[in-house]
Amino acid sequence: MKYILITGAAGFIGSNLIKYFLKHTNYQIIAIDNLSLGQEKYLPKNNGRFIFKKIDISSQKDLKILEICLKDKEIYSLWHLAANSDIPAGVKDSYLDFKNTFLGTYEIIKLLKNKNLKQIHFASSSAVYGNHDSKKINENSGPLLPISNYGAFKLASESFLSSFVEETNTKLYIYRFPNVVGTPSTHGILFDFISRLNYDSTFLKVKGNGNQRKQYLYVDDLITAMIIGSSSLNEHRNILNIGPSDNGITVKEIAELTIQEYGKKSEIIYGKTIAGWKGDIPKFNYDISKLKSLDWVPIYKSSYDAIKVALKEIIYQLS
Amino acid sequence: MKYILITGAAGFIGSNLIKYFLKHTNYQIIAIDNLSLGQEKYLPKNNGRFIFKKIDISSQKDLKILEICLKDKEIYSLWHLAANSDIPAGVKDSYLDFKNTFLGTYEIIKLLKNKNLKQIHFASSSAVYGNHDSKKINENSGPLLPISNYGAFKLASESFLSSFVEETNTKLYIYRFPNVVGTPSTHGILFDFISRLNYDSTFLKVKGNGNQRKQYLYVDDLITAMIIGSSSLNEHRNILNIGPSDNGITVKEIAELTIQEYGKKSEIIYGKTIAGWKGDIPKFNYDISKLKSLDWVPIYKSSYDAIKVALKEIIYQLS
Repeated sequence: MKYILITGAAGFIGSNLIKYFLKHTNYQIIAIDNLSLGQEKYLPKNNGRFIFKKIDISSQKDLKILEICLKDKEIYSLWHLAANSDIPAGVKDSYLDFKNTFLGTYEIIKLLKNKNLKQIHFASSSAVYGNHDSKKINENSGPLLPISNYGAFKLASESFLSSFVEETNTKLYIYRFPNVVGTPSTHGILFDFISRLNYDSTFLKVKGNGNQRKQYLYVDDLITAMIIGSSSLNEHRNILNIGPSDNGITVKEIAELTIQEYGKKSEIIYGKTIAGWKGDIPKFNYDISKLKSLDWVPIYKSSYDAIKVALKEIIYQLS
Repeated sequence: MKYILITGAAGFIGSNLIKYFLKHTNYQIIAIDNLSLGQEKYLPKNNGRFIFKKIDISSQKDLKILEICLKDKEIYSLWHLAANSDIPAGVKDSYLDFKNTFLGTYEIIKLLKNKNLKQIHFASSSAVYGNHDSKKINENSGPLLPISNYGAFKLASESFLSSFVEETNTKLYIYRFPNVVGTPSTHGILFDFISRLNYDSTFLKVKGNGNQRKQYLYVDDLITAMIIGSSSLNEHRNILNIGPSDNGITVKEIAELTIQEYGKKSEIIYGKTIAGWKGDIPKFNYDISKLKSLDWVPIYKSSYDAIKVALKEIIYQLS
């Protein structure tokens, strides 16, 4: 019986990953989350194969409870998704990313030190690369100079995980996520746009001039990319850029698509700056050749398709 | 009057940097150190241009004292050298690097947030690159997958500094150090070798089989490389590999040179492993083209020359 531990389990990615595992594997799943953005209602009820505990991995008290809960269990793999996911908030207060992203990583790894982990899967981000203008970025690209605390503490976490596995046979999988869309949505551009339209549908205010182009992947495609990545890659440490094949969609196109799907006559009002916020990356050219070489096929072929299906779902979720 | 703040000031590099500044600049120097490895006797006496305070930058209590001491002062530049420097100890207990390297960086930066810093100079390490076998490593090489906690928390610190400067005009200088030798020696292979011979000069036990090849730079050359680097490089974020021009010296050669300089008939006893300890990097090919393009000329042309002069000095220091 293989126990797997998932942190950030009640969040957007976590809850979808759990659905996948319950459907396609026979893993025993131990799911934890501090329920800051995640919600228990996104998760299945506790049953023979699934157990949820409200645990904040940056709290010493909670870690003690988790330690007792894991006593005498070997953990086959850790899927570590817990992190601060509010990038602009982390720009204002670095402690959010320090505590929820980095300190959490450090503490959960210390706790699992003697658990004979076979695999660690870490939800990292394209934000670790920082600003490379329009240069193609693959897994070996450098320098890594993040421009947001979000990216900085993701990279700091990667670094510690990399040194941690040196003394073990644990395989490390670092997935560098793009922007991901789908439901249950807890944050992000589509969540913001729909929430604002629900509040007042006469207009939609957009941060930045709308020309930023970004790549989006649908959540199911992200999950199969991770699963296929982890089953295909076999190094001690593995890094995988995950993203769609196209070169993205502009904020302007997203805003227009949102208005169209929302179905009201809303006026779009743009800002004047290039980037939406400090630490936002206006241009990004993600090289996903490594992922493509693994025979992964996404259901939604473009950022546009991913955004379109996610919009329909989020409008329904927030209605 | 330009105030500069130096952390890790009483250590090996810090005390030499202070000598340089007192001789060649008119900076007002505020020097801090927790005196864990560093010693006050390595520093000049407090005077009109130099002040030393015993401060541990990972201690909240000490940070409050420092805050008062810096009140109403603008700081022109921070030279941040404080870190755990005992690599093998950090492999055994990650908390050493977490606290002394990373948390220290995080806290000192938070404290200086409103000090209108013009420059941050950070003593990073070639250890951030991890193991690249014999591939040439320049400042843009990736991936960055450290194999020691020492390297991991140096990289984590780089990451946070990189995101910190995004919202400021502060210029960031990341110097990736090689092995550095000279006096006052507080740790490292020469310090260990001489200390062991002082204890019992009949034999010298060497960790590893002696075939590891590493590059060494003499401390004065490291300091001029940083000074010339910071005066020549002018990006918002600057990374500079610092090292000698040769491809290094083996541990065997160092052991033999040590015996020769020590002048006793000591037997050398080698270990059997390739690397000296977990997290040690057996092979490393450092590309210093960027440094060379800056017209820096080292006094000691090779690792051999640097080791030879440092040995004489350390034998005297520890006698």
